[in-house]
Amino acid sequence: MKIGFIGLGSMGVGMARNLMRASHTITVYNRTRAKAEAFGKEGAAVANTPAEAAREAEAVFTMLADDTAVEEVVLGPDGIASALPVGSIHLSCSTISVLFARKLAEEHGNRNQGFVSSPVFGRPDAAEAKRLLVILAGDQKLIERCRPLAEAIGRQTFVLGSQPWHANALKLCGNFMIVSMIEAFGEAFAVMRKTGIQEQQFLNVMAELFGSPVYKNYGTTIVERNFEPAGFALKLGLKDVRQALELGGEVGAPMPLASILRDQFVSALAHGQETLDWSSVALVAARAAGLDSKSAA
Amino acid sequence: MKIGFIGLGSMGVGMARNLMRASHTITVYNRTRAKAEAFGKEGAAVANTPAEAAREAEAVFTMLADDTAVEEVVLGPDGIASALPVGSIHLSCSTISVLFARKLAEEHGNRNQGFVSSPVFGRPDAAEAKRLLVILAGDQKLIERCRPLAEAIGRQTFVLGSQPWHANALKLCGNFMIVSMIEAFGEAFAVMRKTGIQEQQFLNVMAELFGSPVYKNYGTTIVERNFEPAGFALKLGLKDVRQALELGGEVGAPMPLASILRDQFVSALAHGQETLDWSSVALVAARAAGLDSKSAA
Amino acid sequence: MKIGFIGLGSMGVGMARNLMRASHTITVYNRTRAKAEAFGKEGAAVANTPAEAAREAEAVFTMLADDTAVEEVVLGPDGIASALPVGSIHLSCSTISVLFARKLAEEHGNRNQGFVSSPVFGRPDAAEAKRLLVILAGDQKLIERCRPLAEAIGRQTFVLGSQPWHANALKLCGNFMIVSMIEAFGEAFAVMRKTGIQEQQFLNVMAELFGSPVYKNYGTTIVERNFEPAGFALKLGLKDVRQALELGGEVGAPMPLASILRDQFVSALAHGQETLDWSSVALVAARAAGLDSKSAA
Amino acid sequence: MKIGFIGLGSMGVGMARNLMRASHTITVYNRTRAKAEAFGKEGAAVANTPAEAAREAEAVFTMLADDTAVEEVVLGPDGIASALPVGSIHLSCSTISVLFARKLAEEHGNRNQGFVSSPVFGRPDAAEAKRLLVILAGDQKLIERCRPLAEAIGRQTFVLGSQPWHANALKLCGNFMIVSMIEAFGEAFAVMRKTGIQEQQFLNVMAELFGSPVYKNYGTTIVERNFEPAGFALKLGLKDVRQALELGGEVGAPMPLASILRDQFVSALAHGQETLDWSSVALVAARAAGLDSKSAA
Repeated sequence: MKIGFIGLGSMGVGMARNLMRASHTITVYNRTRAKAEAFGKEGAAVANTPAEAAREAEAVFTMLADDTAVEEVVLGPDGIASALPVGSIHLSCSTISVLFARKLAEEHGNRNQGFVSSPVFGRPDAAEAKRLLVILAGDQKLIERCRPLAEAIGRQTFVLGSQPWHANALKLCGNFMIVSMIEAFGEAFAVMRKTGIQEQQFLNVMAELFGSPVYKNYGTTIVERNFEPAGFALKLGLKDVRQALELGGEVGAPMPLASILRDQFVSALAHGQETLDWSSVALVAARAAGLDSKSAA
Repeated sequence: MKIGFIGLGSMGVGMARNLMRASHTITVYNRTRAKAEAFGKEGAAVANTPAEAAREAEAVFTMLADDTAVEEVVLGPDGIASALPVGSIHLSCSTISVLFARKLAEEHGNRNQGFVSSPVFGRPDAAEAKRLLVILAGDQKLIERCRPLAEAIGRQTFVLGSQPWHANALKLCGNFMIVSMIEAFGEAFAVMRKTGIQEQQFLNVMAELFGSPVYKNYGTTIVERNFEPAGFALKLGLKDVRQALELGGEVGAPMPLASILRDQFVSALAHGQETLDWSSVALVAARAAGLDSKSAA
Repeated sequence: MKIGFIGLGSMGVGMARNLMRASHTITVYNRTRAKAEAFGKEGAAVANTPAEAAREAEAVFTMLADDTAVEEVVLGPDGIASALPVGSIHLSCSTISVLFARKLAEEHGNRNQGFVSSPVFGRPDAAEAKRLLVILAGDQKLIERCRPLAEAIGRQTFVLGSQPWHANALKLCGNFMIVSMIEAFGEAFAVMRKTGIQEQQFLNVMAELFGSPVYKNYGTTIVERNFEPAGFALKLGLKDVRQALELGGEVGAPMPLASILRDQFVSALAHGQETLDWSSVALVAARAAGLDSKSAA
Repeated sequence: MKIGFIGLGSMGVGMARNLMRASHTITVYNRTRAKAEAFGKEGAAVANTPAEAAREAEAVFTMLADDTAVEEVVLGPDGIASALPVGSIHLSCSTISVLFARKLAEEHGNRNQGFVSSPVFGRPDAAEAKRLLVILAGDQKLIERCRPLAEAIGRQTFVLGSQPWHANALKLCGNFMIVSMIEAFGEAFAVMRKTGIQEQQFLNVMAELFGSPVYKNYGTTIVERNFEPAGFALKLGLKDVRQALELGGEVGAPMPLASILRDQFVSALAHGQETLDWSSVALVAARAAGLDSKSAA
C-alpha cells in the first residue's frame, strides 16, 4: 500500500520501519527534517509537508505528541486534510483527547476522507520490535482495510465499534491504569524505605506476584532512577491524566484515583521533572515522606 | 518435622496439606472443630486447643483472619505461647498489623521461643497448588530452619532482615498494590461503560498489556460480578488498607492513593458488601457514576 | 456615567439596579429580551445587541455564566469589542477562566479599549442589597476610574495589581474555599447522621464556632435540602472547580482537596443535580455512606 | 460545688480559673506538679494524685491531651475511678476517641459514678476568657447538674442526647471542619503565591467574605508563619483527624476530604512539624508546589 507517515519521534520511527518491512511504500514527513532525511536512507521517500506525504497515499499515519501537534499537521496549512484523496484513510495513532478525535472524524468526514482512530500501547522498544498493541475504532469497512497495517506494527489488534473516539477513550483509560501502578509503587517504595526495607526487595516480590513485564520494567526504572532519556515524558503523562479526567467528567464518571495522579504530576512539574520519564512521578511520594528523592538508598 | 497448624480456613487447608505432602507430621487446631476433624481424615492429628497443637511441635503455623484471632490463639488461655517448647518456632502467616507483629516477637522472645513472620501472597487456589509467595523475616538462624517449610507451601521464598515485622510491612504494601489495581479497574470500567465500551473489551486489552495473571483474574472476577464466595472478604481488605495507612503514618509516609482506597472500602461496607470478595470494591466507582452496580451491562 | 450592562441574570439584575440607584445612565442588553424589557421599565434603555449597549458607554459591564457566554457577547457578531469607544472600559464581572481573561485583555488592548477584571463575591440577595465584594485588577488608572462603579455595587472593593487575570485567579480560589466548606459539611453531616446526631444540631454548633453567615446560610440550605431555585447552579460550580484546578496546574500548585471536590461534583452531575444549587454537592457524601440523600431524617 | 480538676495545660488553666471565679471550690491535679503549685496560689487546693482530687468531689473535670493520658488518670493507679464518690460526675473535656468515651462511660457506670462527655471548642485564649463552646452528652439528669459548670467555662452550651460518646463524635467532626479550612487555605495560598498574589491579599478578601474570626485568626497565623508556641500541636491535630476517620469508618461514612488531611498531616510530621501549631499543615501544600515553606514571600 502507499502510505504516508507523519511523526518520526521515538515511537514513530519503529512503526514506520515496520510498515516498510511489510513491503509498504512509505513517504515520511517530520517537522525536524533531519530525522526524515535519516529515514530516507532506509528507503522511504521524504516529503516537504504533511500534504505532500498524504497526496497520493491510500493511508496516512500520524504519531505525534498531542492535540496541538496533530491539529497543525492535519488541519494547518499544507495539512493532511487538504491533500488526502477521497476514500483514503487517516490513521491517528497519537494519544489525543476524545474531543479532538471527534473533530478529526468530522473534518475528514466532511471531505469524504476516511478516519480511523488507532492509538497504540507500548514503549519505543516495543514499537521497534513490532510488539505494540493497536486499538482500532471507526467505520467497519475502513477498519478491515486498516487491519493489515495494524498487524504490520503490532503484536495484537483490538477492534472497537464505529466511533473513532472510543479508541482514544480506551487508550486514555489504559494509560491511567499504568500511572496508577506507578503511583502505587511510589507510595509503597516510600513506606518500605522508611521502614528499612530496600526498594529492590519489594520490587522482587511484586515482579513475581504480578508476573507482569510492565511491573518489572517500570519498577526497575524507578528503583534505578533511570528517568533519562524519557521513554514517555512526564509532561505528556500529565496531559494524558488530564484527558482521562476530562473524559470521565464528560461521561459522568468520577475518578478519584486519577485526581490524585494529577496532583502528583503537577507537583512533579513544580519540581522540574517535566522532561523525565513519567515514571519519575513516583518521586513525589518520596518527597512527601521527607526522603531524598534522588537516590533509593 | 513435628508441626502444629492453627487455622484451617480456605488458605490454611491448602498450606497444611502441602506440609503433609512434604512428609511433615502435622497436628491441626481449628476453632470450628468440624474442619479439623475433616482434616484429621487426611492424616493429621487433631488438637483440642492451640496449646495442644504446639506442645510438642518444632514449629507451629498460624493462618488466621486478623490480629484479634491471632492474639486469642497465641496469648489467650490454652494459647500457643503457653505451650510451645523453648527453641521451637512460631511462623505467623496471617496478615497482621506491624504493631501486633512486634508484640508477638516480644512475647515469644520473653519465653525463649522463636518467632518468624511469614506472611504469604496468593489466593486459596494458589495455597492448594503450592504456588504461594512466602516472605520470611526474623532471626537468621531461625529463618534457615524455616526455609524448608516455606518451600513446602510456596513457589518462591523471599527473605528480609532480622525484624519479623518487616515481613508484615511488606505484605501490607503488597496488598495495597493489588487493591490499587482493583480500584483503577473500577474507575476505568465505569468510564468505559459510560462511554459505551464493554468492560470485557477493556479487560482484554489490559490483560494483554500487563501480561499479568493477577490483572486477568481480578479483572474477570469484576467483569463477571463473581464476588461470592469471597476469595478474600472485603472487610478483611479494609483491615489491610487501614493497617497499611497506619504503617505509613507510623514511619512517616503519606499514602494518598491508599486513603482513597480506604474511603471506597468504607462506602462498599455501607452498601452491604462486607462478605463479598474485596475486588467488589470496584463497584463503588460504578455507583458514584450513577451506574447500576449489579451488572456490567 | 454612561454605562452598558450585559447580562440580567439573578446576579446582574441587582448589580444593574444599584448602578442606576447611584445615578448612572444605564443601557442594558440581555439575550432573553423579556428580562431587559422588564428592566427598561425601571428606567434603563434597552439595547438590541451588546454592541448597541457599548457604543456610547464610558464603561460596560458583563455578568454572564461562563467563558462561552462572555466570548459571544464580547467577540461575537455585534459584540462589545466591535463598538466600545477607544478609552472606554469593559468591566468583566463573570467568573471566567484566567486563560480567557488574558485573551480579553489582549483583544481590548489591541483596540485601545480598557479592560478591568472585576469578579464579585456574593449571592443574588447580596447583589440586590449592594453587599457584594468586588475584586479589581488591571491598569492602575483604569481602576481608579472604575472604583466608584465598584462601590456602587458592593460593600467593599479589593484592588490587586495590573494583571486583570489575577482578579479571576483570586475569585476561583475564593470559590474553592466556599466549596471546600460545603464538602466538609457534606462529609460531617453524613457521619453525624450515621452516628445518630441530627444535622441541625451539628450545624448549630458550627454556626456558633465559625461565627460566619456563610457557614450558617450554606449549612441551613443543606440541612433543609433547599436547593431549588439554585442561587448558583451546580454545573457552574463544577466549572469553577475545574478552572481552579487548571489554574493550579498552570502555575504549578497541586490542589488535592480541589481534586476531591471535582470528583464529588462529577458524581452529583451523574445523579442529575446539574440545575440544583451547588451546595447540593453535599449529598454525594450522604450517598456514599448509603444514606437517603433526599431528606435529612 | 466541690470540684476536682485534672490537667492544667494551656486549656485547663483557663477553665479551672473560670470555675473558681464562679465560686466553686477547686482541687487541682497536674502531672507536672509545678503547674499545680502555681495554681494553688490562686486559691485552689493541690492534690498529689488524681484520686485525691476526686475523693470528695461532686464533679471532676479532665482536660488532657489524648486517650492515653485520660486512661492513666482515670483508670490507672490512684486514678479518678478508684476514688470518685458514688453519684458524683466525671466531666471529660478532652478530645478523645468515641471508642474510649464508651469505655469510660462503662467503667464509671460499673462503679455507679456519673459520666458526662463535655468536649469544648476554643483555643487557650477563649478558655481564659470564658468563651468556649461546650458540648454535653450523657444522662439527662446528670446533664442538668453539669449545666452550671458548663456555663461557668463557656459562652454557649449545646446538649446532645444520652450517649456520652456522641459529644466526642461531634467534637471530632467539628475539628475536621476547622482543618478542612486550614488545608483549603494552604492550597489556595500556594496557588496565589505562584500566581503572584500575596497571601495577605487573598486573606483580606476571605476574612471579609466569610466574616468569621476563625478564618481571620487561622489565616493570619498561617500568613505570619506564627506556629510557635502551638495553640494546638500538629501531632494532636493528626490524632483528631485519625479519630474522625475511625469514627467515619465505624459508622460507615467515607470522608475523602479527611483522608487528604491525614496525608498532609503525615507529610508535615515527616518534615519535623509535630510541635508546631496544627495550622502549619498548610505548609505541606506550599512544599508540594515547590515553594519555600518557611516564608510567605
